[in-house]
Parts: sequence; structure tokens; C-alpha cells
Amino acid sequence: MDRIRGIVSDTIKKFEMIMPNDRVLVAVSGGKDSLALWEILSTLGYHTDALFIDLGIEDYSEFCKRECYNFGKEIGGKLIIFDLKKEFGKSLMDVVAKSPRKACSVCGIIKRYIMNFVAVKKGYDALATGHTLDDEVAFLASNILRWDIVQISRQKPVLESWHPMLAKKVKPLCMLSDLEMMNYALALGIRVCEEKCPLSTNAFSPFMKKILNDIENRAPGTKKNFYREFLKNRSIFERTVIDDIKIMECENCGMPTVGKYCSFCKIMGFA
Amino acid sequence: MDRIRGIVSDTIKKFEMIMPNDRVLVAVSGGKDSLALWEILSTLGYHTDALFIDLGIEDYSEFCKRECYNFGKEIGGKLIIFDLKKEFGKSLMDVVAKSPRKACSVCGIIKRYIMNFVAVKKGYDALATGHTLDDEVAFLASNILRWDIVQISRQKPVLESWHPMLAKKVKPLCMLSDLEMMNYALALGIRVCEEKCPLSTNAFSPFMKKILNDIENRAPGTKKNFYREFLKNRSIFERTVIDDIKIMECENCGMPTVGKYCSFCKIMGFA
Repeated sequence: MDRIRGIVSDTIKKFEMIMPNDRVLVAVSGGKDSLALWEILSTLGYHTDALFIDLGIEDYSEFCKRECYNFGKEIGGKLIIFDLKKEFGKSLMDVVAKSPRKACSVCGIIKRYIMNFVAVKKGYDALATGHTLDDEVAFLASNILRWDIVQISRQKPVLESWHPMLAKKVKPLCMLSDLEMMNYALALGIRVCEEKCPLSTNAFSPFMKKILNDIENRAPGTKKNFYREFLKNRSIFERTVIDDIKIMECENCGMPTVGKYCSFCKIMGFA
Repeated sequence: MDRIRGIVSDTIKKFEMIMPNDRVLVAVSGGKDSLALWEILSTLGYHTDALFIDLGIEDYSEFCKRECYNFGKEIGGKLIIFDLKKEFGKSLMDVVAKSPRKACSVCGIIKRYIMNFVAVKKGYDALATGHTLDDEVAFLASNILRWDIVQISRQKPVLESWHPMLAKKVKPLCMLSDLEMMNYALALGIRVCEEKCPLSTNAFSPFMKKILNDIENRAPGTKKNFYREFLKNRSIFERTVIDDIKIMECENCGMPTVGKYCSFCKIMGFA
């Protein structure tokens, strides 16, 4: 337990993720990683609240919400519940039904928008997500297979806020594997939920995680080394991305975007 | 058959590998890829001879040499046989027995040296090897997992000669998969040899090939796209490699190297 907390603490300090008096908003999904992150940040003494986004995915969202609520009560933490349908009139199911995009892609756009929206509107200093080493290397490997230089150049443990309406984003679990987090969650008594999102069939990310674990089994240490060495060399990619994109304000919601309307307003059908 | 030859022909032209009147030396191992390359280059009308390096690996080298010899007779091509023990007094077995390095690493150093040595001494304009798309992507992926920027920056379908004692090196099969070459070899009647080098146990490259084929099966087209997009973006890596290495001449053999002695002379115990 202490080893895991120590690694999180070191990661936070090394990458200057959170300052001692910062107010942190942890995005929780109901899964083991984000709930454990909430507990770890609280235990480490950071002022931490949690955000659950109720996307309205049938029973699944209800189940996840209850997990977050119960866990918050256990550790004495404050949970903000953001109900997409109540606040914006449409659930994820409603949006997916009318979109040509895959559900995971729609969900990603909505979640990123809402997490940032709540963190900014409520004045948090940082938004923390439960991305693990496995999440980071799977994402990195997928982007490298396509040589998506822009995505590769943006992958960092910390995304600094560069606009008043954009929260600072941090990933304090980025040096810990899914396996390490699983063991931590079990030791902590977090119910490791077997429930899978009914919309995420055939997602590529779990497949890439399996592939990377096959490599890890053959050559132990590969995942951590791959990520560490990437962070050392990441600037190679940054230099090649031409950052002459003009930032505008979404004509519907006012949030920063690169076009006339932001992706969220477009996908929600507001623009 | 014609489709494969067409792809090789296009690859040669696109990357300016071989000019019409060039004399080409094909390095043949006895395996299907290099023998097929020999046949394809001859059929395409290039002036092509082949080189087999007899490394003295027990029965295996004998077997491979015979395959090359018979194939050369069939297609009416000239085969140069370079016997390591006869020319330099030691077989690969002798060298491996006294080296702390892995056999595949020792073999790589020796083969690269001899291939270049013969090509340069006999005045060939280009040295062609049978590296396939699978070889290239497996090598690339392994280097990326370690973020070996120098190796990544050097991976090209053509390595131009930048010194009178270094041959131009070309990989005309780099756009064709192992599967495509297997089918070509079968159609051509090349005996696809199941014999494996007895020294290459537990090599990483076949494992990486399997991993990349798992990804290919899940997302067809990944390997070719990964390699193509890499070639488009490869210069990113080149810019970051500081090329202030001083080229010297090996004090034993006179070939270009970065230290006092070249890797070959060191590993053979000549320096």
C-alpha cells in the first residue's frame, strides 16, 4: 500500500502535478483505478473532491454512480454528480443514436468537455484522471502505429492550462501498471468491478493492452521503459508540430476551440 | 508472380535503389526471401550476382550453401561463396565460443562486414538484402520500444554509400510481407526451408513478428501503414541525432569505423 502511495507521491512531485494547497478534482468512473486515485490523493493529504459524470448508459451508469457514492461515503470524500441529461437535455445514448461516430469516440468528447467544464467553473486547480501506465502505453503504441505525430506530441503526464477556460490535467497513476492498481484496489477492499460498459464492444485499447502485456511477459520491464524513454524523447515530436492553430471561442458555449463551434456542441447537436 | 515483381520494380524505382546498368550483389542465405530476391532481380533484367557467406555453422551452413548453389544453377546465376574460416581462420562457432555476446549479435556483425567487404572489393554498385516488410516493421517496433533514436533514424530502404569503402545497401522487398514472399516462393517452386539456424534460439525478432501479425489480424493494413507513415516521418528522428562522429580507419583492416578498430576485427580477435 505504502509503496503505491509513495510512487504516486513521487510522480506528483516529479512532474509538478499538484501543489500542496491546490484543490484537485478527481474524475471517477466507478472503476478501480479512479476510485483508488481518489483515496490515494486524499490519504496523501491533498484537498480532493471527486466528479462522476452520469452519462445515462442504462443500468451501467446507475451501477457506477452507486459504486462512486458508496466509496465516497467510506472515505469521507465529497462527490459531485453531473447528470448529462439533466444539465444538457440528452444522455450519451441519445447522442450516440444520432451520431455516425463510434460510441467510445462520442463518449470521449463528452467526458473531456464535462470534466474540464466542471473543473473550470468550480475553480479547481487541477483535474486528475486515473490513467495508468497501461493506459498510457496502449494509447502511445496506437498513435505510433498510425504515426499520429500531433497526438504523440501531446501525450504528457501533465497538460498545463494555457487558457483560463482550460483546466490543468494530471495523471498521477501514469507510472503504475493495471496489475499494481488491481492489487492496491484489492488490498484496499475496493470492489473490482467486472461490469463493462455495454457500448464499448470491440474497443481497440483493451486489445493493445493485451499485446503490450504479451511483450511485457516476454521482456519484463518493457512497458515502464517504453514510457520513461518516450518522456525523455518526447520533445522530438513537439518540434515538428506546427502550432499556428488559431484558438477561438465556441459561438455556442464560449469554450476555447479551433473552429466556429467546439466538438461538444457539434456532437450534442447544439451547433 | 507479376504483381510481386511489379511491386519490387516500383520499390526499386521509387527509392532509387538500383540504376539500369548497376551491378548488384544479392546476399543470399538459403532462405526463401533472399533466393526469391535473386530470381526477381534477374528476371527484372538487373545484372545480379549472389553472395553466400559460409559461416561454418555445422550442418546448417552446408545445407544452406547447397540450397543456394542449386538455386543458382536453376536460374543460371553466378554465386560467390565466401568461406569465413578459409578466409579469416575462424568459423562463427569458433568466435561465438569465445564471445560474451549472443550468437545472433556476433553473426550480425560478421555478416554485415563480409557483405560490405565483398561488395566493395569486387566493385558492385549496390548490395541487396532480402529484408521484407515484416523484418523492417519488427526491427522498427523493437527500436521504438527502447526509443533507440540512432537506430530508428538509420532505418531506410536505401543506405547510400558515404565512403569509398562502404557499399550502397538496398532492400527491394521492404514493401512485401513474409506471407506475400512465401506465396511467391511456393509459386516459383523454391523449397521453403523449415530448417532453423541452431544458434538462434530465443531470438526476439520472430516474437515481434508474431506480435505485429496479431495486430495485423485485428486491424488489417497496419504493418504496411506503420512502415509507410514511418518513412514519411523518419526525418524527425534524423534531426535529433548529432552526427559529429569522427570516422577513422580500422588500424587492422583499414575499413571505416568510429573507433581504433572496427567491430569485426574486435570480435574476430584481430585487435
